[in-house]
Order: sequence, then C-alpha cells, then structure tokens
Amino acid sequence: MNAPAGFFASTEPLKYAGPESRDPFSFRWYDKDRVVLGKRMEDHLRFAVAYWHSFTWPGGDPFGGETFLRPWMHGADEMALARAKADVAFELFRILDAPFFAFHDRDIAPEGRSLKESNANVRAIADIFARKMETSKVRLLWGTANLFSNRRFMAGAATNPDPDVFAYAAAQVKTVLEVTHELGGQNYVLWGGREGYETLLNTDLKSELDHMARFLNLVVEHKHKIGFKGTILIEPKPQEPTKHQYDFDVGTVYGLLCRAGLEKEVKLNIEANHATLAGHSFEHEIAMAAALGVFGSIDMNKGDAQSGWDTDQFPTNVEDTALAMYEILRAGGYTTGGTNFDAKVRRQSIEPEDLVIAHAAAMDVCARALLIAADMIEDGALQHAVDERYAGWQTPDARAMLAPGSSLDAIAARVEAAGLDPQPRSGRQERFEALAGSYLR
Amino acid sequence: MNAPAGFFASTEPLKYAGPESRDPFSFRWYDKDRVVLGKRMEDHLRFAVAYWHSFTWPGGDPFGGETFLRPWMHGADEMALARAKADVAFELFRILDAPFFAFHDRDIAPEGRSLKESNANVRAIADIFARKMETSKVRLLWGTANLFSNRRFMAGAATNPDPDVFAYAAAQVKTVLEVTHELGGQNYVLWGGREGYETLLNTDLKSELDHMARFLNLVVEHKHKIGFKGTILIEPKPQEPTKHQYDFDVGTVYGLLCRAGLEKEVKLNIEANHATLAGHSFEHEIAMAAALGVFGSIDMNKGDAQSGWDTDQFPTNVEDTALAMYEILRAGGYTTGGTNFDAKVRRQSIEPEDLVIAHAAAMDVCARALLIAADMIEDGALQHAVDERYAGWQTPDARAMLAPGSSLDAIAARVEAAGLDPQPRSGRQERFEALAGSYLR
Amino acid sequence: MNAPAGFFASTEPLKYAGPESRDPFSFRWYDKDRVVLGKRMEDHLRFAVAYWHSFTWPGGDPFGGETFLRPWMHGADEMALARAKADVAFELFRILDAPFFAFHDRDIAPEGRSLKESNANVRAIADIFARKMETSKVRLLWGTANLFSNRRFMAGAATNPDPDVFAYAAAQVKTVLEVTHELGGQNYVLWGGREGYETLLNTDLKSELDHMARFLNLVVEHKHKIGFKGTILIEPKPQEPTKHQYDFDVGTVYGLLCRAGLEKEVKLNIEANHATLAGHSFEHEIAMAAALGVFGSIDMNKGDAQSGWDTDQFPTNVEDTALAMYEILRAGGYTTGGTNFDAKVRRQSIEPEDLVIAHAAAMDVCARALLIAADMIEDGALQHAVDERYAGWQTPDARAMLAPGSSLDAIAARVEAAGLDPQPRSGRQERFEALAGSYLR
Amino acid sequence: MNAPAGFFASTEPLKYAGPESRDPFSFRWYDKDRVVLGKRMEDHLRFAVAYWHSFTWPGGDPFGGETFLRPWMHGADEMALARAKADVAFELFRILDAPFFAFHDRDIAPEGRSLKESNANVRAIADIFARKMETSKVRLLWGTANLFSNRRFMAGAATNPDPDVFAYAAAQVKTVLEVTHELGGQNYVLWGGREGYETLLNTDLKSELDHMARFLNLVVEHKHKIGFKGTILIEPKPQEPTKHQYDFDVGTVYGLLCRAGLEKEVKLNIEANHATLAGHSFEHEIAMAAALGVFGSIDMNKGDAQSGWDTDQFPTNVEDTALAMYEILRAGGYTTGGTNFDAKVRRQSIEPEDLVIAHAAAMDVCARALLIAADMIEDGALQHAVDERYAGWQTPDARAMLAPGSSLDAIAARVEAAGLDPQPRSGRQERFEALAGSYLR
Repeated sequence: MNAPAGFFASTEPLKYAGPESRDPFSFRWYDKDRVVLGKRMEDHLRFAVAYWHSFTWPGGDPFGGETFLRPWMHGADEMALARAKADVAFELFRILDAPFFAFHDRDIAPEGRSLKESNANVRAIADIFARKMETSKVRLLWGTANLFSNRRFMAGAATNPDPDVFAYAAAQVKTVLEVTHELGGQNYVLWGGREGYETLLNTDLKSELDHMARFLNLVVEHKHKIGFKGTILIEPKPQEPTKHQYDFDVGTVYGLLCRAGLEKEVKLNIEANHATLAGHSFEHEIAMAAALGVFGSIDMNKGDAQSGWDTDQFPTNVEDTALAMYEILRAGGYTTGGTNFDAKVRRQSIEPEDLVIAHAAAMDVCARALLIAADMIEDGALQHAVDERYAGWQTPDARAMLAPGSSLDAIAARVEAAGLDPQPRSGRQERFEALAGSYLR
Repeated sequence: MNAPAGFFASTEPLKYAGPESRDPFSFRWYDKDRVVLGKRMEDHLRFAVAYWHSFTWPGGDPFGGETFLRPWMHGADEMALARAKADVAFELFRILDAPFFAFHDRDIAPEGRSLKESNANVRAIADIFARKMETSKVRLLWGTANLFSNRRFMAGAATNPDPDVFAYAAAQVKTVLEVTHELGGQNYVLWGGREGYETLLNTDLKSELDHMARFLNLVVEHKHKIGFKGTILIEPKPQEPTKHQYDFDVGTVYGLLCRAGLEKEVKLNIEANHATLAGHSFEHEIAMAAALGVFGSIDMNKGDAQSGWDTDQFPTNVEDTALAMYEILRAGGYTTGGTNFDAKVRRQSIEPEDLVIAHAAAMDVCARALLIAADMIEDGALQHAVDERYAGWQTPDARAMLAPGSSLDAIAARVEAAGLDPQPRSGRQERFEALAGSYLR
Repeated sequence: MNAPAGFFASTEPLKYAGPESRDPFSFRWYDKDRVVLGKRMEDHLRFAVAYWHSFTWPGGDPFGGETFLRPWMHGADEMALARAKADVAFELFRILDAPFFAFHDRDIAPEGRSLKESNANVRAIADIFARKMETSKVRLLWGTANLFSNRRFMAGAATNPDPDVFAYAAAQVKTVLEVTHELGGQNYVLWGGREGYETLLNTDLKSELDHMARFLNLVVEHKHKIGFKGTILIEPKPQEPTKHQYDFDVGTVYGLLCRAGLEKEVKLNIEANHATLAGHSFEHEIAMAAALGVFGSIDMNKGDAQSGWDTDQFPTNVEDTALAMYEILRAGGYTTGGTNFDAKVRRQSIEPEDLVIAHAAAMDVCARALLIAADMIEDGALQHAVDERYAGWQTPDARAMLAPGSSLDAIAARVEAAGLDPQPRSGRQERFEALAGSYLR
Repeated sequence: MNAPAGFFASTEPLKYAGPESRDPFSFRWYDKDRVVLGKRMEDHLRFAVAYWHSFTWPGGDPFGGETFLRPWMHGADEMALARAKADVAFELFRILDAPFFAFHDRDIAPEGRSLKESNANVRAIADIFARKMETSKVRLLWGTANLFSNRRFMAGAATNPDPDVFAYAAAQVKTVLEVTHELGGQNYVLWGGREGYETLLNTDLKSELDHMARFLNLVVEHKHKIGFKGTILIEPKPQEPTKHQYDFDVGTVYGLLCRAGLEKEVKLNIEANHATLAGHSFEHEIAMAAALGVFGSIDMNKGDAQSGWDTDQFPTNVEDTALAMYEILRAGGYTTGGTNFDAKVRRQSIEPEDLVIAHAAAMDVCARALLIAADMIEDGALQHAVDERYAGWQTPDARAMLAPGSSLDAIAARVEAAGLDPQPRSGRQERFEALAGSYLR
C-alpha cells in the first residue's frame, strides 16, 4: 500500500485569520477561544469530524464507482490499511483542531470472517485510537455500529424477519457500546438505516416495531449495566435506503420512545438533511425535540434543495445555519451533544485539500451562525416580541383554562357572559424576519 | 333565491347495474347488500358524503373565484339558503343511497353576529337534520367545528397566542360536540387546520403544544360528561394551510397523544391526500395507526401525484385503493369509523350531475377495492407468505430475546457460542407484488 | 367606504440609515444613489411593487377567507374603491421610493358587465395612473391581463376548448397591451395561469399548444403594429392553479418559443418561487435563460422550502439572493426588466405597516445581495477559477472538435493515436462554495 | 468462477396461462400472438430486457454493498465472466420469450487498459451476441455507451471541462453506434447521465450546452455516414446523479434539439420514473413528445411515490400503465421504439427466480394495460368526448383566428360587435375519469 504520509500537502493546523482573509486554509470566523455568551466558541460548537464520510466513503454513487482512490483503500493487508487510515484521520483532526470525532465500527476496521474477528479488529483499532488520544486533544463524540452495509442487514437489523440477525446486531452493538464507553465517548448513536421496509406487502409492521422497541431497551439496559454515562441517541430519517424508515422524524421517534417507555432515557441526534427530507426545516426539528425534552445532538450538513435524497453536503448558508443555532441556544445548548459534520466532499472533490477546505469553511459557517444566534439571544428583541405576542396567557382567566378543573362548560359560559369576540392581531411575520435578518452583520 | 328543486336533473336513486354497465348513473361494483367476508358491503364501507366539499365550497382556488354558482350560495336570507342547501344535500344522500354524512358547523349554517347566534343557527339546522333523518336512512358519521375559516382563527384555535380565541374555540366545540351527540353521530373529529405555525420566529412552540394538549383533554372530558359514546378522532395533516401543522402524521399524533395522556382515548381519522403530503402512502398510515392501536376512520380521496398541495380529488385507482382497504380489513375493519369522501369535484366540474357521477364512481372504486382486499384476506396467500418470512421469531431462542431478562451480554454469548452468521433471504418483493396484483380480476 | 387617508400611520418616505440601523422603517443596505459597478443601485435593481399582491389580494387562502379588510375592498361604488386603492398604492410607492410598479388589468379596476365596460374601467384608472405618474417618479415596469380569475377562464384562455374564450382573451390583451404602451410600460407580461390542463383525459394537448402559439404570435404582431418598444415576457410556472402548466420552466418555454418561431421576439420573466416549484434553483433558471438568450426580468420572492405550492413570500435570505443577483450581473443586468416583488405579506400580517416593512426588508435583502454579487464580479476570482477549469477548450485540438468538419472518425483516430486517457481533476465544489461565501462580509 | 449453468432453477420458457392463473412462472395476460387493434401483442409491446439492471448491477445502494453475488461477478478472467453473463442473459431472454434486449457497452464487457482494448472487449462480446442471435429470436432494441460510471466521466462526457474527455466519449460512442448498427439495433440511445452540473459556481453553462449540441450533431452525422437506419434517442432525466441534468424533461430536450437544429433528427426515449422525478406524469411526457413530434421509445418502470430518487422498480399498477399505453396508441404506437424494462429487482430480491417473476409480472401489467388502452381506442367514447369539447374550433370564426391574417384588432372588433360573453362549460373531469376507469374490466 501507499503510505499515507504526505497525504495532505500541508499538515499545518489551521489558524484564525479574521473575516477579511480569503485564504481557504484559515478560519475567518471560528476563533475557538473567543467567548460568546460566557462560553468559548469551541465549547459551544463542539465540532466533530465523521470518520465515515471523510475516510471510508470511496466517492461512489448509484451511477458510478470510486473516484477518490485514497491510498488506504487499496491493499492486501486490511488492518494495515485501517491503521494508515487512522493516521490520516488523526492528522486531519489535528489540522482542523477538531475537538471531537465520531465513527461506525465498520469505518475504522475491516469486517472479519466472524463477528468475533470483526470485534477484535474494532478493538485493535480502538486501542490505537486510545493511544493517539493520549497525545491528541481530540475526544470521541460518539460511536455507533454499522447495522446496514453488510448484506446480512439488507432487511434490517433489530427489525429483520430473521431473529438471528437481531441477535447478531445486538452482539455487535454490545461491542461498540463498550468500546465507545472505554474511549470516553460522550454519546452512543443508533441510526436505524434499514429499520423500515421496502414494501408493506412483505412486512409485519407491528412485530417489527415491537422488536425495535425491545432492542432499544436492551441497549439502554446495557448502558446502565456497564456504567456508561453518555447519552443514547436516535437519529431520525424518513427514508433512504429504505422506502420507509421507522425513525421518520422527531415527532415520530418521540411517539415510539413513549411506546417503548424510553422517552426519559433516549435523546435525539438531529441531522439537517434528514429533517428536510422529512418535510421539516432543520430548526423545526431542533425546536420540536427541545419542546419534547429529547434534544441531544446534531449532524450538521445540508441537502440539495432540488434533490430528493440525502446529499450530506457541507453547510454553506450562514443565515439558515443561524436559525438552527438559535434554536440550539434557546434549548440551552449542548450537554453531551455536539456539531458533527455528517457531510462529505462531493465525489468530484478528489484532492486531499478539498477535505480540509470543506471542513474549515463549514466550521466558519457554523461559527458565524453562532455569533448571529448569540446576538439574537443577547439582544433579546426576538424573544421579547414573542413574549408580547403570548402575553395574554399570563392572565388569570387564561391560566384557569389550562388548570385542572376547567371545563368546556365553564369556558363556554364565560365566553357567552363576556360576549367574547376576539379580534385577530397581526402575526408580523415580515417584521420578525426583518428583525432576525438584522443580526446578520 | 332560486329554489333548489330541480337542482339535479334526476333524483332517481342510483342502482347497482353490474361491471358491464357504462352508465355513469349506476353502480358497477357497489352492491350494498352483497355479503363480503360475512358482512354487507354497505356495512363494510360505511360511506359518508362530506357537506363541506359538495355543498359549501364555491369552486374557488387561489387564482380564481367561485365557479359553481349554486343556487343556495346567493341570496339575502342566509338561513333560508342554509335550509335550501340542506334539502339538496339530503337529496344527494338519497340519490347515492349514502348511509352517512359528515359536516362542520359552518358548512351547515351561517355564522351569526355572535357565537350565541352562530350556535343557534347550527342548532336550527341540526333540528332540520334531525327531522330529515327520521324519514331518511342516512346517519351522521361525524361532526366537527370549523376552527380555521374565520379570521379570528388565522393564528390557530387551541394554539392561538390569544387565550380568548382558545376560549371561543372551546365554546364552539362544546356546541358541535353536543349537536353531534344529539344527532347520533358516531364520532367527533378534530382537524387542527391552523394548529401549527407560519414561522418559528414568532412562535412559542412548547406553549402551543401544551395548550393543544389541554384543549384535547377538555374535549375528552366533555365527551364523557355528556355521555357521548362515539370516538374522538384527530385528523393528521402535515401542512397547509399552515407551514407546519402539529398533527403532522400518524406517528407524530401518536406521540402528542402519549404526551397528553390520551393515547387510549383518541383515535385517528386518516386522509389519503394528507398521508401522501406527509411523505407516506395511504396504506402506510392506516397500518401504522393499526399497529399503534389508534386506527379510527378514513377520509377517502386522492391527491395529484404532481401537485404539492391538498387537491382532495375523488379516488380513481382501484389498485391503490385496494392496498388501503386491505390494511383496513387487516385492522379488523371499522368500528365507529367509515369511508368519508373528503373529496370535491374539480372547480371546472360545474354541472350538478358531476357531483353525482363523482361520488358514484368513487364508491365503485372503493367497492371493487374492497372485493380485491377481501379476496386477499380470504385467499390468505399474502399473509401466509408474510408469516413464513417471520417464522423464525417463533423459536424459543427468538422469543427469549424479546422477553424480560434477556440482555446484550446473553445474546452476544449465544451469537459467539453458536457462531451465528445469518445469511440473507430474498425479500421477494416482486413476487409479493405479483401476488397482490393477481387479485385484480 | 372608509377613506384610505391615514391608511399608513406614517407616509414619510423611507431613508437609508445604514447597516447598524434596526429601525424597520429605514433601509439598512438599499442606498439608491450608491454606485455599484458603475451604475446607481436604483438603476441596477429597478424595484417594482406588484399591485396584485399588495392591494388586491384580500388575505384569503383555501381554508379561510379575507383577513385584511382593506378599506378599499368594501363598498358599493366599485370605481370609487378602485380610485381609493390607487391613492394608497401610489402612497406606498412614494413611501418606498419605488421606481416601478406592475399590474394586472383586474387589479386596478372592477370588471364591468361587458368587456367593453371592463376595458373602460381599466382605461379610467389608467388615466388616473397617468396623472399620478406626472407628479410621481414611479414608472410602469409591466402590465398584464388577468386571464385566469374570472370563471370564463376556468379552462384556460388561449388554450380554452371554447374559441370564444380565446377571442375574449385576445380582445382583453389588446386593451392591456395598449394601455401598457400608453403608460410607458417597459414590458408586457404573459403568465399562462390556466394555460395547461387538469387531466389529460379531457385535453387535446396538441391543439392547445397550437392555439397558444397562435395567440402569442398575435400578441407579438400587435406589439409591432402599435409601435410598442417594450419586451414581451412569458413567465414560466410548472403548475398551480392547473395540474400542468404549459410554460413549465425556462427550458420548456424556450422550446415552445422555437416551435412558434418566436425565440428572438419574446423573453422570460423568471419568478423565484416558480423556479423552485419546477425543481430548479432560481439562479439556475436565470443562468439558463441567459444561456439561451431569453433572459428578461424577474419576479422576486421566495417559496417555503417545506410547502409544495406558490407561497410568494418576500425574500429573506441574502446569500440565496446573491447567487441570483450574480447570474443577473453575469447576464449583463436588466435592459427593460426589473426586480418585481411578486410577493405578498402573510395573511396574518394585517397591519398596514406590515406592507411597508416587508418591502423595505426585501429591498435591503436584494441590495445587500447586489453588493455581494458585484464584489464577486469585481474581484473576479470565481470567474477566473471557472475559466481555468475550462482552459483546455482553448487548444486547437479542442476547438477543432467543435468546428464544422470534425467527425467521430477523426476524433476517434486522434484518441487512439494519442492514447488519450484523460484523468479526472477535482471539481473543487467546496472551495468554490467557500470562495462564494467569503463575499458575504 | 462458478458456471452459470443451472443459475435458473428452471429454464422452461414461460407460457400464457390466462387470468385465473396464480403461477408466477406464467403469463396471465401477455399472450403474444393475440391480435389487438390488428396487431400481435408482441408487435405492439416490443418488450426489451435491460442488460444493465438484470445482469450488471450487483445490488448495492448508497448505504450498502453487493447483495446478489451473481456467479459471473466474481473471478479473475473478466472476459470469461462476461461470456458467462451473456449465457445467462440469453437464457433469461429465452425464458421470458423477450423479443428485444438493450445494453450499455460497459454492461456486456469489461473495461480494458485502454479504450482500444475496451472497444475490442465490446466487439468480442458483440460477436458472441451476433452468434447467439442467429439461433435466438431476440433482437437488439438499442445500444448505448456508458459515459458516466468511470471516474474519467465524473464531470460529464460531452460537457466535461476537459476536451479530452469529450474526445474519449466521442470515440467510445463511435464504437457502440457501429456495434449497434452491426447487430441490427433499432435505435441508439444517449442518456446524459452526467451531462449537467453539481454546482453552477464552477460551471460554464453556455459552453457546456454548446458542447453537448456539437456532440449530438457529431453522432447524427456519423449515423448517416455509416448508414444506420435506426433512430437516435435522447433519454430525459431531471437530476441524479447530477444536481441538474441538461436533458431535464421532454419539453426541455425539445428546446435543446431546436437550438442544435436536430428536432427532426432525434427522438426521445421516455422513462416513467424520470418523468415523475421531473414533476410530470409518465403519460404527460409521452403525450408531450407526441405533440412535439419526437416520441420514440419508452423505458418502462416506476418510481416509488414516496422516494425522491430513481428507484427503477418494475411497474405494478395496471391502471397507471394503461394511461401511458393509451397515449402510445394515440401517438400511433412504436415505430423503431419498444417497451424496455429499465427496471431492477430490489436489492433484497436475491433469488434468480426473482428476476424471472419480476419481468413476467411486469409484462403482464403492460399487456393488460395494452388491452385496456386498446379498448379505449376501439370504443372511442373518450376521444369522442374530447372532440365534442373542442368542437367549437371547427367553426369558421374560430379557424379564422388561427389563420394568418387574423389580428388582435379584428378579433377584438368581433368580440365587441357580437357582445361575446362566453360561459364556462363543465370540464367533466370525474366523468372522464369514470369512463376511463370503466375499461378496467
């Protein structure tokens, strides 16, 4: 195999250079020690690099094969390749000064001839990670098990018609959850890539939902058993690869968690592109999760507004991102969560530097978005205008309606007695939008 | 005003004429007394005509005004017009031999100068309904309150920033719920037409969800207080008129019901076009509601596959409809629910006969779909193939994983001990589809 | 009727106040005399206010009626109302310092009992416009005939199955084209609102396309006959109100123009929201029109990314708008065209001031977008990077392939002789995006 | 490598067994010698099996790899594998009694170390095809060059920024066009898989359109040079793999053909799933191509109504398919075109028999759809109702408006003189739909 040494033309860590800079190998807005709302930018944003997109995906799409030809993708000794890949990965983490990374088990180590061997491979690379992390400041945002790429999972993992696949998946998650725990991971993620169906005709929907709920309970129980203090996160997605994914969106996952008795145990990892594919804005899904008490973390990326699939592009629009950041700040910011770039350079972006530039530009988009969102929070005019709009709900009559003991009869009597004929008041949407826009300095 | 007498060229009730008929004023497949799976077709399908679409909508769209010029839509004496409209409505029910109808309060009677007067108008027309129902066999599938057309509701009803609107809506629902009860209604429906938002920027999402939950509890409490034995139904819709409607889809509504503690009290009225707008197939939403234990009733229509809004067209595709009917039968069929045509003739279909033909053809589509679905059930080959696919879950090892006491540790130990390496089996989607297709005789 | 005097709380024209201002009744970026790329901002942007959305639409939607209750919308003397409406309109033009406005005939004057009377009404109001324009600086960007709202047009105008409707529409366009000419209009627009179909089943597609082509030729011939020097513009839209509109998008309209022999005579008025409904980005449609030589003017607005219909919202996103402005500048800017706000305040925005704020904020969005786009042009780095990417096409071998006389044989021989094995080069998308983003100062 | 002998459990050609059959290895409706509208079913439908989907695609998707593990996909001797694949392919053609097949060059033979070697490989397999076709009745519907899978084409073929890629593609097409000609192919197809862009920012749109037009002219010139009598077909698709494909839909391609001067030389190959992705119904695209005089052939498949990408599923819905068949019959049926199954079994359908069943069921869907469409044509009631709707256009006044010499002035004078006030007539959409539905026996 080719040695990855020299993969990046320069391994100089990127520096903050200020908004006037047009050097793509610098940060224009991400100034990690700058204090915003009393916290360092780095601690607000908690950026993570995703192993899968940046190091494991070869650049293929449904109409064409590999484009990247990364040196660690071709060779006979798969574990040696995996080690080389890890070297490059940690090099990128260092260049970007990224505080976190995230991985699937199959991203980091080759599948073996048996689960036992696969697990051993994962542990071997995890050991390398552990050593690298001793001398690096990068930490693990989350680990997860890939329960969708191997053909054994083609009909699902926890929801597979074959219980042996359920068992296999459970055994695989056990290892990755433990490895995540050992590496100090802040969260463990479940993305139900193939937990869904291709056609209702061949599907026992209720059983699959039951099996999925059971699987999730097994994971939560194991978390407690091993003393993992991180958060278990579910990542909603409406479709793709399957026609229908059970974890459709925040609202749906919340319902399934209630059904499984886990709405206090599990939180959500919300991806921008998954939100838009489900017919929501990204900020909606964050706000909804916050309202339901299950906001956890985000997968930051963007879709293509004209494409009906998961394009996982790096975010580019500061104003859109600011609306998401505003909701995160309103939700109190991250606890164990972070901003994971679940984003990949386009398959035509075959230069190693494209990886660096894409992340740096995206970090800048988020950083500037954070500054705007923080301004919105500090200034308070938006919140004030909202509070004013709902001020009527502070009156005794209003509060009484919400309190136990109120009834349609009592309310109707009051409406008639008072001759209530409420007149509409302007929603002032354009004024709110203009105000929000004014924070983009 | 013009007298509605003679509105329909013929008032002869439509008869079953058999599949060879091409007379659009006959039924080709709907043979109400034909017994299917041990029940009369009429009792299976429980068709309802929707007052709103057929008698109240004037034919306007966002780019043009009224096209229908119904005689009962123009005149000075609004109550006389409402009575004339009722005459025509019951004439159509009779022509179609429809066993049910459904209405919003504002469909049947004009809004007065106060809620008291509006309620009086509703009761006056309801009295006419009651008398007509004495000599007609038509029954009330459900009633509902229109909490979205009047400008007072422009920012929502239960979720309005103004608590007086909440109160007004509550008082309005009280009347319609009671009227529905008095008319022997089988269900009461809540469609949250403007329970949602236009922009997150001016919205207190969590408060609105809380208010909506409280409102729903008030309705359920009142139902029990007055002894209404029908079902309270929520009708999900993802958007339109608002950008985001809280009752997005079945999965989301289930979650909100759990949050309100009402998942045992409230069921769902699922509309085909709302399902597709939410990114689901109609049959999916039915199957999901059944799996979650909240299936209630359906609004039968179809959307336009190329249009991104609620077109509320009459169903035309037998094969698509059969897949929905199959899920309804698998769910055990309707209890209090029915097949309500929440469908409107196109605004260019300005002849009175278009109303008759549209309903008759749609009833035939549903009837034939029912026959196909019943064949699928009776033949059992589809269910058998599904059962076979999941047969592995009947083994002791499989059942043990689902039972309390299992753990990731135990499962992983078994996977390793048994050297489990599950091999994928064909999902046979095309074979299932071919089998399903073969019931279309 | 209520006198519109005092409709706006203040009639003070808005002033440029600079980016730090948060007064919604000022411009933060629109500084009309500021020179950008050698031209005043006002002359670049050529803003127009649309009569329809701001003064004629009552605030209804498919689920609810009027919300605005404008004083000029209710009263017995329709011509007096129309005059009052004109007063308010010109007041808004003055407040906004808008250089242009645009109208449909039915926006400005009531429909009469005959076409003759309707035309007389239009002329009467046009006379008032003419007088007002003598003392105002506002000019007419374009006029157009409303061939879609009246029920006579429910099945189309030029493409109606009834030739009398074609004739009626032709007669109506004649008047509006002449009035537009007389008022010094810079363009005449055709939006084929109902030129399309609801179902192919009842449609003679080819005849309808032929009739539409003939209609368009009649309009162009009349333009020349009366000496109108403005541009005839077609406004593409894929659907809504009809299921399929013939003027689907830029590419489709170009083909229909070629078929009608009019690709040199007619240009396009591109609307942002129509572009996105057709599955394109706004900037794509502008760039495509420019490439095909038919770019004319734009209808500036935005859709809602989660709504499948034409929401006609005021633009809010500077970055998105900058990409459109960049393509306009690359196309050489407007000649007769302009930036028409085909945008309406939300139906909940019922305060008169919402109209002012919405336009002012949108003008600022466009102004800032223009500044960014001008920076991109002046800096030249984007264009330079594109040129570099295509530099190979300047070689003799490359140019020879494009020249007459080349052939597959000759090219294949050269490929074999030279052993051509072209290697891919990075498309550098993220680097281009980062560069584009860097102009957002 | 494994020998493909015995790949299919049975190689017995499928037989017509009639509608009552539920044997998936038989035809229920496809009775090739049955005469419909004076022509054998086989000659109407002209079914083709697509090499790519059935023999070359390994079952991967963006989230998982190969599932099929076909014996001819793994081995060291690529040409031997290609020969084995050809054996299986022709076996399937025989089992299905398919009259046609279709291929890309890279489907049938491995890419060599140079274009010369690749071409030699293609010719070697084509020779095998030629021999097999001597003893088989299967013929070639079309050939095409794969200009999108190899990474050299990642930025397009004819529209690549690198002219050497244009040259390489031209040389590749030359070979495949000639091979297609030699094999007696009825058509040659161009699908512009990567002729489009990922971001406008790095794209010279006008140059790319010019290069594409030149490429197309080169192909047409070569066709004439070598005496190929088949049809050159372009296959529109709106997007995927690229964000925007230039051959967006029928209307757009027609415009580009006009621009290239080729609207008389080139026809269209319309794919169902591409039509729906472009925001059209399949039948619309066929009818539009027929109206524009460019209808050629179809790629029969279906998309998933809830998935925003090209799923290429086998058609299952008879009623939908009948509407497409009706438009094909109205267009006069195929000349050189045919019904190519551009459809793949789902990646979970890993049994060889799934391939057989999927095709057989799809052939039945098309056959039954043909019977319905033929009934519609023979009965004539639909066409009659359409003709009646447009009957007004046969009057002298109507015809005069369409004739040269008419003018807006003359038409307006007539409208005024005659006091024309056309009244709308019902579009009777539901009646048309009911009539169309009645042909589903």
